[in-house]
Amino acid sequence: MKQYGAEFLGTFWLVLGGCGSAVLAAAFPGVGIGLLGVSLAFGLTVLTMAYAIGPISGCHLNPAVSVGLWAAGRFPGDKLPGYIVAQVFGAIIAGGVLYVIASGAPGFDVAKGFASNGYGVRSPGGYSMMAGLVCEVVMTMMFLVVILGATDSRAPGQFAPIPIGLALTLIHLVSIPVTNTSVNPARSTGVAIYAGAPALEQLWLFWVAPIVGAVIGAYVFRAIRGKDE
Amino acid sequence: MKQYGAEFLGTFWLVLGGCGSAVLAAAFPGVGIGLLGVSLAFGLTVLTMAYAIGPISGCHLNPAVSVGLWAAGRFPGDKLPGYIVAQVFGAIIAGGVLYVIASGAPGFDVAKGFASNGYGVRSPGGYSMMAGLVCEVVMTMMFLVVILGATDSRAPGQFAPIPIGLALTLIHLVSIPVTNTSVNPARSTGVAIYAGAPALEQLWLFWVAPIVGAVIGAYVFRAIRGKDE
Amino acid sequence: MKQYGAEFLGTFWLVLGGCGSAVLAAAFPGVGIGLLGVSLAFGLTVLTMAYAIGPISGCHLNPAVSVGLWAAGRFPGDKLPGYIVAQVFGAIIAGGVLYVIASGAPGFDVAKGFASNGYGVRSPGGYSMMAGLVCEVVMTMMFLVVILGATDSRAPGQFAPIPIGLALTLIHLVSIPVTNTSVNPARSTGVAIYAGAPALEQLWLFWVAPIVGAVIGAYVFRAIRGKDE
Amino acid sequence: MKQYGAEFLGTFWLVLGGCGSAVLAAAFPGVGIGLLGVSLAFGLTVLTMAYAIGPISGCHLNPAVSVGLWAAGRFPGDKLPGYIVAQVFGAIIAGGVLYVIASGAPGFDVAKGFASNGYGVRSPGGYSMMAGLVCEVVMTMMFLVVILGATDSRAPGQFAPIPIGLALTLIHLVSIPVTNTSVNPARSTGVAIYAGAPALEQLWLFWVAPIVGAVIGAYVFRAIRGKDE
Repeated sequence: MKQYGAEFLGTFWLVLGGCGSAVLAAAFPGVGIGLLGVSLAFGLTVLTMAYAIGPISGCHLNPAVSVGLWAAGRFPGDKLPGYIVAQVFGAIIAGGVLYVIASGAPGFDVAKGFASNGYGVRSPGGYSMMAGLVCEVVMTMMFLVVILGATDSRAPGQFAPIPIGLALTLIHLVSIPVTNTSVNPARSTGVAIYAGAPALEQLWLFWVAPIVGAVIGAYVFRAIRGKDE
Repeated sequence: MKQYGAEFLGTFWLVLGGCGSAVLAAAFPGVGIGLLGVSLAFGLTVLTMAYAIGPISGCHLNPAVSVGLWAAGRFPGDKLPGYIVAQVFGAIIAGGVLYVIASGAPGFDVAKGFASNGYGVRSPGGYSMMAGLVCEVVMTMMFLVVILGATDSRAPGQFAPIPIGLALTLIHLVSIPVTNTSVNPARSTGVAIYAGAPALEQLWLFWVAPIVGAVIGAYVFRAIRGKDE
Repeated sequence: MKQYGAEFLGTFWLVLGGCGSAVLAAAFPGVGIGLLGVSLAFGLTVLTMAYAIGPISGCHLNPAVSVGLWAAGRFPGDKLPGYIVAQVFGAIIAGGVLYVIASGAPGFDVAKGFASNGYGVRSPGGYSMMAGLVCEVVMTMMFLVVILGATDSRAPGQFAPIPIGLALTLIHLVSIPVTNTSVNPARSTGVAIYAGAPALEQLWLFWVAPIVGAVIGAYVFRAIRGKDE
Repeated sequence: MKQYGAEFLGTFWLVLGGCGSAVLAAAFPGVGIGLLGVSLAFGLTVLTMAYAIGPISGCHLNPAVSVGLWAAGRFPGDKLPGYIVAQVFGAIIAGGVLYVIASGAPGFDVAKGFASNGYGVRSPGGYSMMAGLVCEVVMTMMFLVVILGATDSRAPGQFAPIPIGLALTLIHLVSIPVTNTSVNPARSTGVAIYAGAPALEQLWLFWVAPIVGAVIGAYVFRAIRGKDE
């Protein structure tokens, strides 16, 4: 139960910090943080929480990560449902808190997207569904390779939050223009339910692609790692 | 006494570095550092000082942090007054040094805000008092969760300055548009006294909200952490 | 064979992340990540992969690095061909995946450069071939000094991915305007073959200069290091 | 002699990386790295070199740092002249290499400043000599506090390059508009001799202020640290 609480709180932080920076600060006139600032914010939510709650729950904050770790034999399947529910619930509460804050300023309009993910006409740069699908699968695959490698028994585990958090920053630096970057079904869900029907209609891709990518990543890492001798 | 000296010096650095970057460099024509640079600067004041003076005083640099650590049973109550006085004093001296430097350029006008915190008409993005209150409470709450988690007996303590400093960067990436970001009553006080009456009239919120948030954060962390087995 | 797989995957990540950020996000209207974001992305590909696959292959991701490590007596010559082939192959596949994603948006035109390296008329800032040559040699030389020093037996090796990755960020912060920054023949090759004949005609410099610089760096580091006593 | 070689090479990197990013990339049209990118570059030169050559020479790269460490009783006085000469020499050679690269593009004009430091009419933001003096003294003082604290026997020394490098980033985030940021007489000298008479006439301040600040920093740190019990 402590673990579910930690996952709830951590995913709350991921969505409040990551999506919050996008909604509140990315395009602030003249001195906005831009996509670079948003990328840094997403990565720092994971880096900070991994040091804070890593010893409690492992700090997944992401259903695709939990599934990928399970596929790699690093996480027990019977905890998957609880983790995923806690993650999605934390994300939705974060979306709500963000809504309360964001709507306190004149000119706020949830129809601007509310940091939701999308493809085609809802892609920030107008990227097709196929481009978005490839991008989300490949990015999540590589995210899992970094996670599995950095937390491997051969790696210096105390450092793991740094490469894992900064891998999420890197992923955003590349792919915000394509899909607004998900690689995390909970993050996508947590804001889509406020952004409305257009966001919800595309939400399926941000569950399917990250989970498929995560499972591929687990197998790819297993292939290059080999066994202990 | 060494501890109070360290807290004085550290909070001096937090305000000089964080507010200094905002006043001097954020909106520099063409190549200004923007809110992203200011966010990084605030975080780096804590990261750098935590390695420098952490072994001396614990490097709180913030009355809300001292109160939160006390609420979590990690800091003795009898040192609270001394720490808070040293922090506020360091912040005010930093505000004075920044004033001396900033007023050395043509066009300097303290009425532009001098990096003070505010809500309503004094919010950078025009956010309401309620939005500012929610934002400061939640951000300080999560700041304490990161601080308590990263310095927990189960965590690799030598890394703690990195997630703690970068959590402050993250908090600024999200919330500068809302309140100019306080989460630190000393930081708010250190510049408000130079910014004048409009800033001082709103200063109460930047004492109340961070301290309330910090205490909530202490209880939240205790709840998800559980006891050692 | 595991090592070649790791080098393939790591160099795939370097090109997809670094060149991907340049092609997809650098100049995104209004909130683009700019050269600073691209510099950060390149560095983070190395930082993240060095923690993930460092224990497997050493995480060179770069023929010049492999040659420099060999020149410094740190890497066996008989593995050079395999490493270099794997690196170039990973880079080319990454270029292909990036092409698939990037071409999913309207207005994509590979003739804009596709993040390829160049000098003279193909230099981002119009720098001459001689300027580009000096820049690539000196930057790769210093990159090898950082790599050799940070992984030296006297240095705290678990930290090495941080200075090495951030050295690549630093190199890009300086030299993108000059040559679009290579210091890595595989990275240059991986996008040049898509960018077409003009890029391929200049590709020789981005093999010669990084390798020459890397070998010089190996000797410079040996000179300042001295022997163990 | 190895130590002098290391200081030469490290200061070469500091000036080539820091001033190089300013001259070549800060104001690149549309996607320039700005003062934030330059600040990051300066910090990363120190972070990367401290891991690479720290075990050889201690990686001062700065006459003010060497003097401050001597004042704090951490560095032998008889090595001061050799270190300072090596640092200044490395900086001047870096200035020369940067000149060769920078002059390879059309429109290069050394009279634009060549990243030299200045006050009054030569201050980027038009700050007075007194503002520049106060700023350089206080910034170098705090730089020494961070250096002495992070390398103190009570601190986790393997982390020291991170707070020290990022302290230099922080200092630049605040003070580039004031003096273009020196806190380092070698860095100032290494580009002033190319920037010409106006820069050389103001060079005295960037020797006096950093060294005075460093000595003050040494005494301030001694005061708050106290003795081992």
